[in-house]
Amino acid sequence: MAFYVQKYGGSSVANVKKIKNVARRIVDVARQGNQVLVVVSALGDTTDELIELAREVSSVHSRREMDLLMSTGEMVSSALLAMAVEDLGVDAVSLTAPQMGIKTDVAHTRARILHIDGERIWNELDRGRIVVAAGFQGMTEDMDITTLGRGGSDITAVALAAALEADECEIYTDVDGVFTADPRRTEDAHKLEKINYEEMLEMASLGAEVLQVRAVEFAWKYEVKLQVRSSFTDETGTIIQGSDESMEEVEVRGVTADVNQTRITVADVPDQPGVAAKIFGKLADLNINVDMIVQSSATHSEGANDISFTVSKTDFEEAFQAVEEADEELGGGGITTDDNIAKVSVVGTGMRNHPGVARKLFGALGADEINIEMISTSEIKISVIVEEDDTDKAVQLLHKTFEL
Amino acid sequence: MAFYVQKYGGSSVANVKKIKNVARRIVDVARQGNQVLVVVSALGDTTDELIELAREVSSVHSRREMDLLMSTGEMVSSALLAMAVEDLGVDAVSLTAPQMGIKTDVAHTRARILHIDGERIWNELDRGRIVVAAGFQGMTEDMDITTLGRGGSDITAVALAAALEADECEIYTDVDGVFTADPRRTEDAHKLEKINYEEMLEMASLGAEVLQVRAVEFAWKYEVKLQVRSSFTDETGTIIQGSDESMEEVEVRGVTADVNQTRITVADVPDQPGVAAKIFGKLADLNINVDMIVQSSATHSEGANDISFTVSKTDFEEAFQAVEEADEELGGGGITTDDNIAKVSVVGTGMRNHPGVARKLFGALGADEINIEMISTSEIKISVIVEEDDTDKAVQLLHKTFEL
Repeated sequence: MAFYVQKYGGSSVANVKKIKNVARRIVDVARQGNQVLVVVSALGDTTDELIELAREVSSVHSRREMDLLMSTGEMVSSALLAMAVEDLGVDAVSLTAPQMGIKTDVAHTRARILHIDGERIWNELDRGRIVVAAGFQGMTEDMDITTLGRGGSDITAVALAAALEADECEIYTDVDGVFTADPRRTEDAHKLEKINYEEMLEMASLGAEVLQVRAVEFAWKYEVKLQVRSSFTDETGTIIQGSDESMEEVEVRGVTADVNQTRITVADVPDQPGVAAKIFGKLADLNINVDMIVQSSATHSEGANDISFTVSKTDFEEAFQAVEEADEELGGGGITTDDNIAKVSVVGTGMRNHPGVARKLFGALGADEINIEMISTSEIKISVIVEEDDTDKAVQLLHKTFEL
Repeated sequence: MAFYVQKYGGSSVANVKKIKNVARRIVDVARQGNQVLVVVSALGDTTDELIELAREVSSVHSRREMDLLMSTGEMVSSALLAMAVEDLGVDAVSLTAPQMGIKTDVAHTRARILHIDGERIWNELDRGRIVVAAGFQGMTEDMDITTLGRGGSDITAVALAAALEADECEIYTDVDGVFTADPRRTEDAHKLEKINYEEMLEMASLGAEVLQVRAVEFAWKYEVKLQVRSSFTDETGTIIQGSDESMEEVEVRGVTADVNQTRITVADVPDQPGVAAKIFGKLADLNINVDMIVQSSATHSEGANDISFTVSKTDFEEAFQAVEEADEELGGGGITTDDNIAKVSVVGTGMRNHPGVARKLFGALGADEINIEMISTSEIKISVIVEEDDTDKAVQLLHKTFEL
């Protein structure tokens, strides 16, 4: 007997037929003698519809009220899924965050889990029931409902698996697992059997949308064995766990591409302390994530720098205004922007011990005349900015170069 | 400064425009220096839509899961209404049943309130906030969500008004108050300024749909002053409270009609003990409410009886099967049914001290050649069954007869 935590996303429970399909899968696992705790997201687009209603009702969006509003989506799906399971003759019970004792801080709409009291869940599992947990939600000390932010149901699943020491946490989604690259960009892409937390973290940050960054961090911290797999097939997915020997031998695990970025360049700013702090301080005040940052002075007269960085396209307008302000205050030389870019990255723990990866990457792109506009590296990742039109070509080329 | 509990039904918050309208009303009352606790039902037809989803997903309807599912409707409306109030610049906070400490028994889908812990509500009111309470819901000792059954939001409002000793509990609806008769049946009908609990209880039982019977019972028990009024006008509604002298002088307060009943007659059953118990026992097993019951033996040979009674049209099919069984077991003479009937009633505490009411009623109907098929009386009510086609005529006639 094993104890599984399974998470089903909104696309897996988008309608009545899909809910029944998920119920059948769960019941199969339970009938094989396993204990099952299921975490479920809201049906399809429910959350977006609730947010739209809130927009229509009020221009003031109390985060506390938004949280209560949004949390209802997962209550509906968990109750419906529990009913669908019972319809197949197996006892089930839905549980909300307050019932599960999922305590969070008070940072409404992006709360962090502080503690999980598993008592009620164990009681229900011990009675032979399948537990259907409402994902995405938590409760403060004062019994106010919170939500965990984007991808919150993944976090709920991983946190429950950690707190209850589940044998495995399965993340069901509409793809078969984690791929070496986006199959829409290169037909050579194939599913990875295994990947370690660190690599998955970079892949997730770089736009592989199967799993939220925070959920991977959580799993890594508590060493929760994850599997990302499809809710529409019976095939094994991708296992995410700690490094083992065999993994270390591979230099690069995957290639990712992100075309959702815009580059902003502030030209000719003074080469003196506090300049970067002024620009990025303004962006931080607006809660805008800056991705790659490159500063160069080589092509300039002494005493002036160019600073380039990328932000997500959705943050661009706000970011641009903030940077304009900073540029004026600094007496800079104006701003240029470019949204015709893509960030292409290779990821792999193995490259730590293989210093030739960067050379191989630059060499391959150069040989095919793909121009590299920016470069950023970490211990297990190299990212380059190329023209958006070169995205697929670059992904295919690197996929071949690193023999994925 | 006064402390008001206000309840708004689903039709008062059916869409964004109506929610904003309700928010304006609440804010007006608060700005006059009053404390306001608002109880809100689910938006329009939300609850019915959730029930339909449950039907599609499962043929097993776990009452516990139905309760979680249905309770989300009121969470959505309370969060939205709180946002709409804040949009007008007044602090507001939504509270769920667990947050308000509304404890109930475990009778899911028709739970009874056991206790209300008002601490959180008082904290919020004392901070100058408008509290928007999710109606219809409660919580068991084990933190499971319950619902209070049909009209549950009325009960929430009255229970909160009782527990918190509010000055008045206002039930906002889409009519102007309690009427002497249904205005669709007689244009003489007019709004009552006052009515006492006992009379309101009979009116509610007899089909005046403004207020649920259980809410009236609750208000009576705890002497909560109620007002039924329209959420679309500023006019005063109908006050419901304990009897006073002036009320006692009026014989009859109102005339009601109910065309939602079917009569079932079991003919020629043996005149011996246990016969009625067998028939009505089977109906009780099915949870079917029987309304009027008449037994007669006058027209029969010795040793046999006719038993007639009415059930609501929705219960008819189930009731008919049960009665057929009973009739076979009793060796009875067959069953006849009639759904072309209406129950017309007059209600008034005053008739206790005016023995002539029944005579006046029968006389008036007889003079107009309206045939009376069944009669049932209580201390403050007389009901007669007439042909359905005579409904409006009977209501108009009795309205005039008793000078309403």
